This record gives sequence, C-alpha cells and structure tokens, in this order.
Amino acid sequence: MPLHPQRTIDDLKALRELTGDEQGAQRVAFTDTWLAARAFLKERLDALPVEQRQDAAGNWWATMPGDSERVLVIGGHLDSVPNGGWLDGCLNVLAGVEVLRRISEQYGGRPPVTLKLVDWADEEGARFGRSLYGSSAAGGNIDIAEMRKLRDKDGVGLEDALARVGVTLADAPQARKELEGAAAYLELHIEQGPVLEGLGLPLGAVLGTVGVERHTVTFHGQAAHSGSTPMNLRRDAFRAAGQLAQEIYTIAERHGGVCTIGRCTTLPGIVTSVVETCELTLDQRHLDAGKLAAMWQDAQDAARRFAEEGGCTASFGDLWYIEPIPFHPELIDAAEASVREVSGTAHRLPSGPLHDAAEVARSGVPTVMLFVQSLRGISHNRIEDTLEEHLVQSVEALDRLTDRAIAWVLAQPGA
Amino acid sequence: MPLHPQRTIDDLKALRELTGDEQGAQRVAFTDTWLAARAFLKERLDALPVEQRQDAAGNWWATMPGDSERVLVIGGHLDSVPNGGWLDGCLNVLAGVEVLRRISEQYGGRPPVTLKLVDWADEEGARFGRSLYGSSAAGGNIDIAEMRKLRDKDGVGLEDALARVGVTLADAPQARKELEGAAAYLELHIEQGPVLEGLGLPLGAVLGTVGVERHTVTFHGQAAHSGSTPMNLRRDAFRAAGQLAQEIYTIAERHGGVCTIGRCTTLPGIVTSVVETCELTLDQRHLDAGKLAAMWQDAQDAARRFAEEGGCTASFGDLWYIEPIPFHPELIDAAEASVREVSGTAHRLPSGPLHDAAEVARSGVPTVMLFVQSLRGISHNRIEDTLEEHLVQSVEALDRLTDRAIAWVLAQPGA
Repeated sequence: MPLHPQRTIDDLKALRELTGDEQGAQRVAFTDTWLAARAFLKERLDALPVEQRQDAAGNWWATMPGDSERVLVIGGHLDSVPNGGWLDGCLNVLAGVEVLRRISEQYGGRPPVTLKLVDWADEEGARFGRSLYGSSAAGGNIDIAEMRKLRDKDGVGLEDALARVGVTLADAPQARKELEGAAAYLELHIEQGPVLEGLGLPLGAVLGTVGVERHTVTFHGQAAHSGSTPMNLRRDAFRAAGQLAQEIYTIAERHGGVCTIGRCTTLPGIVTSVVETCELTLDQRHLDAGKLAAMWQDAQDAARRFAEEGGCTASFGDLWYIEPIPFHPELIDAAEASVREVSGTAHRLPSGPLHDAAEVARSGVPTVMLFVQSLRGISHNRIEDTLEEHLVQSVEALDRLTDRAIAWVLAQPGA
Repeated sequence: MPLHPQRTIDDLKALRELTGDEQGAQRVAFTDTWLAARAFLKERLDALPVEQRQDAAGNWWATMPGDSERVLVIGGHLDSVPNGGWLDGCLNVLAGVEVLRRISEQYGGRPPVTLKLVDWADEEGARFGRSLYGSSAAGGNIDIAEMRKLRDKDGVGLEDALARVGVTLADAPQARKELEGAAAYLELHIEQGPVLEGLGLPLGAVLGTVGVERHTVTFHGQAAHSGSTPMNLRRDAFRAAGQLAQEIYTIAERHGGVCTIGRCTTLPGIVTSVVETCELTLDQRHLDAGKLAAMWQDAQDAARRFAEEGGCTASFGDLWYIEPIPFHPELIDAAEASVREVSGTAHRLPSGPLHDAAEVARSGVPTVMLFVQSLRGISHNRIEDTLEEHLVQSVEALDRLTDRAIAWVLAQPGA
C-alpha cells in the first residue's frame, strides 16, 4: 500500500520548524505565521491533482474531483493558540494530505467520489475569543453582527483582521455553500485528554462532542469581622462554595459526565472578613442531553441546600450552552472498525472539547472523528506530544476510514 | 451622683454632626475633619482643670494632677475609618471626658491619683494601612524606618501627613515617656461583634486581645481541560481548598478560637480548566498562645492531608502574627464587678479586634477594657449603632471602674 505516514510526521516537523519557536507553535489565525503555514500547505497540495481556493469565510479548500459528485470532506485546522503544540489541528490537515496522496495514486487522480480537504480558519478563537469561526460559517451557524463586535487585546477588530487576509466578514455566511452536497465529514485529532493514555490505547472512535452547560453559581452570605464573629453566627459564602466543590464530583459520577469549578472569586476578599459573596464558574458536560440537564439541576439543588444550611442564599447565571452533538452511528462503526484494523483493539469515547467536526455535524453532514492518544493529556502547550508510532497508526486509521467512508457514501440511496 | 451619661450621648451626637456626612463618620487621622474633632474635644476639656498637650507622636493628652503622682489613664481614639460609625473610638474618649467631669466635681479638681485622658492618633490605620500608630509609639513598639515607607493611595507619605499636624515622625518614639509611671489603663469600646447582643447583655469585661496567626495556604494541583479530563484523574486545587473551608470550623470548635478564610484566588481561573493553583488567606485567633499555635498546626496538617488525598500539594506563607495580649486579672475582676453593678449580670469575653489597649498592655501597664453591645455586630459602617440605654450603662460602668481602678492603684505596693 502506497500510504507513507512518515511523510505526515516529516511534514509536521517541517511545519513546526517554520511556524514555531522555543515557546511552541505560533500559528494564531490571520497572522503572518498562520499565512506561512497556509503557504506550506498549498505547496504540498500543489503536487496533487486538486483545485485550491479560499472560501468566503477564509477556509482553505482543496478539491479532488471524483467519478461521483458526492463529496467526502476531510478537515482540520492549521491555526494554533499562542505557544501551542505541534499537533493540535495540523495533524488532521497533514494526515489528510497524505491520504489524498494515497488516493490520488491508487485511482490515477480520479477517485470514486469527490474528495475535499479543508483547513478551517480560526478554530481556536485564541485571538478574538470566538472558536470554530470558519467551520461555523460553513455550517450556517454564524452571527455577523456579533462577530463584528469582536476585538483582540490590542483593539483590532476581527473584521479588519479578516480583511487583511482577503476576507469580507459580511460575506462569510456564503461559505455555507461549501458544505452543500457534502455526504460525509472525517476528522482526525489528538485527544487532548488522558483517557486513551490511561487505557493504554493508541486510537479511539469518537461518539460526538458533549453538550455543555456553563453557569455562574454565586453564594451570598454576610461579611463579618474575622476576630469578633463567633463561628456559629457566620454566614460564610466560601464555606458553602467549598461544599459544592466536593458535591460536583458526586454529581459527575452519578450521571457519568464531568463537572468543573474553574474560577472562584470572593468579596470583600480581605483577610479580616468572612466572605460575603463567592462566585464560582461551573462547567458541566455530557454526551446525553437529558443527563446534562439533570447534572445542572442537581448542581442547583445542591448549591441551594448548602447555602441554606449555612445561612446563605444561592443565585445562578448563564454563561454558555451547547447541546450534545452525536456523530453518525454508521460512521462511528466505520471509525471503530478502522481503529481495530490498525491497532488490534478499539474504544469509543466522547469528545469533551468542541471541534470543527461538531459544527459540520450539526449542519446535517454525517460526521465522525478519530482520536489519537495525547501524552499526559496535555494540549495547548509546547509540551503537547504523541508517540510517533501512534501518529503513524493515526494516519493509517484515517486512511482506512476514508476508504470505508467512500464505500459508505456510494452506498447511500440516490447515489 | 453627679455623673450625667446623657452628656456623653449629646457630645457624641454633636461630634457626629460636626464630622460626619450621609456616608458616615469621616474623622480619618490627620485630615482637617480629624483636626475638627480634636478641637471639639479640646473645647470640652477646657472646662476642666486639666493641662492639655500633643505628645511627640501626635496623641492628645489631658492631665488632671492628683494627690498621688501615680497615673490612671483612660483612652480612646477620635479617628475613624472613611464612612465609619458614630461610636467606634470616640465613645471611649467622650465617656472619659464625662468621667473626668464627675471626678473633678467630686474631688474639687484634685483626685487621689493623677488622671490622664488620651486620644490616640490613627488607631484605625485607614489611610496608611498601619493601625494602632499612636498607642504603639507610646508603648515603644514602633519602627520608624518602616513607618517612613508608608504612603496613602494618593502617594502622600505618613511623614508628610504628620508634619502637617505638627509631628516629626523621627521624634514619635519619644511618646514612650507618656506611659512611664502609668499605673493602670482603662478603655471602653463598642464590641464590634455580635456576642453581647446574642447573649442579651449590654456590657462585658474584656479578657484581653486574642493572638492572631495570619497565613496564606496554597494548594498546587494540575490545570486540565474541563471537557477532556475524567473526574478521577483530576488534581483539583479548588477541591482541596473547599475541604479546608469546612475543616476550619472543626478546628475552631476543637480549640475554642476562630478561623476565617477571607480570600480565595484561583489560577488559571478560567471556566474551561481545572484549578491548578488555589491560594487562600487564613486568619486564626485565640486568647491562648498554645491553643493558637495548635490551631495553626491543625490547619497545616489538614491542608496537607486534603492536598495529598487529591493528588495536590500544599504550601504555606506568613502574613502576620501577634501574640495574645491578656489584660490584668485584678482589673478584669474590677471591670466585671462594675458591669455587674450597672447591669445586674456580667460576662467576660476576649476581644477579636485589636485595640490601643493591647499596645498599652504589652508595654507593661496593667490594662482592662469594657465592651458595650453593638447592634447586629456591625462596625466600620455608618449603620454602626448601640442602644442609647446601653450607652448610658457603658458610661456608668466606666465611671465605676475608674473608682475601682483608683483604689487599686492606691493599694499597690510602694504607693
């Protein structure tokens, strides 16, 4: 078989050399370094029988026309967070390039279905705080008026940053047409978590991206002098918050999801006063919408109970919500079979982080992802890494999944 | 008996009118409003056979010479925090004025011992962050080099603020001689806490000021993605901190002191990450030095245990320490007897907040304080208040305590 996964690893290392420094990857979307990464990609794709173009939102597409007009899309993102890792997002793209090489060779440049490789723009949202920009534009899930308000830390607007790379923000929704006719979408990504490493597995088939309930939980007590207030008369907002910090572990276990208190702020926040107001952020995730709702309900009930027990009250605020986005069952089966072929075993797992694949899936395109093991579960950091033998296996699995997906696309009614 | 406690209440109201506004008392030390309060005090003392002067540190002294050169001191402070209450500190001074009136009348201007009334400068430390300035200078507990570094929020140095009211900072330690020969020190203060109100008592005899151990407690875990990190693999610094928030109540109960976590900061402190670093401030107070040390040891042990259970570590920093300062046992007896005479019942309690009396006591002068009930335990706020009937009783109790203290001073060996 003419697949050469080592070429993907070589490409990844060359890209790291070109766009990283001692602090890590610097391919922040719309910067010169990101443009350099795009040029690197274009150069590799120029060797293949593909047509390349930037769409209305700034995503980069390479199209290899096939015997069928049905389109199979493979995607990823070259952009990184500042001081990011060498694999996050670009493994997806560069493994896709290698799969296109193999397909092109096998079918003499004309595969059974049309293949597209897409490099989504600004998956990370590192600069403007809005992740999944390019894929959400293509998925039809973008609010131009909201996007127009976005500024980076230097006050530069997203609109101006886009203009600099030849994109008119107002036209971004036209990217919607890129996914019209797409019959399936595949994405390989590093896991960015410790599950596969913990299980000793190189690869996993991804069930979907979990839904997220993100809220503030605020406990309201009474400020009181730390020296003159007996313990039994205190209305200590931090004590109630501390109880919730334990309870979220019970809630997560009960429902099989995850719950995180990421930030705690205390008011008046001085050493000589009992805490009057304690605000927490609570992030809860589950692949099942009903269980996600139950986790949030349990957290509210617990917060009210702890507040009441301590003479406090609790209030709640909304930060963000996204529903669970399950991937396509038959493509999950195909992904699992591909993983099993390559590694001998298989595992299905949900994705905690969001990915471009989620935007594609909820636009209605049958979608699946592959995860490859992340060492120590660390990402968004220059020490992000994956064993090279696992990288090789991940390219092989994406390749086999592509073959299965081509067959699946051709087998759909009306093909 | 010619004591007229109502005059004290009238004086307090007149002072409030002169030096307060809609936001509360504004007698911040060394300001024009504070000087106006001092002028108000001087005017009242001018009617008495006392010599008045400002000492080298800026404290205001009124001396009524007596048959004995032994000196009984009554003290308080006219300065307030910004937007402060109408009683904190100035009840002490103005009740002392009324006691001097009664003594002067009873003894025809020449009491059995010399009496001094002192208005300490900058008890609150509201402007320069260093409380008990004047009394610590008189007590011999002042570091001029450190004081010289102090700046207010506008960058004005303490040294300049003192110069404006006629005090040379370098000379402040000379105030030490004011307490030489002092045989006893008495101070009446509002409780600034809820204990007496909770017990339904107007007055209490104060056992001393508690010792304070003030530290940072920092839990070190591991930042991890809120979506991709299973609950059982987390090293959650906030979870460990939340356990300590409960445990300090057990520790306080075990030893009979108070423990307060006043501030919590979380790093990275973002909604999408498990907390890597959680820093708490811990303030612990006890009247017994051994039990205070045991409370701090217990807190460290508990923090290390919670850290270890959660895959974290704990580290500790020093913020501040002061040893417990017990008052004089025989003067506490005298205070309790005086309270019982006035109110029919008596209660002994430690003071959680520090007071000028603590600086006087640790300089070696036999000292005691009286507390009068604070409504809702609230102080340092314009809603600070005490029932007028309790204010009347507090002046009466200070008056009777003064008589007892005069007798006690005269009974000491070598009198």
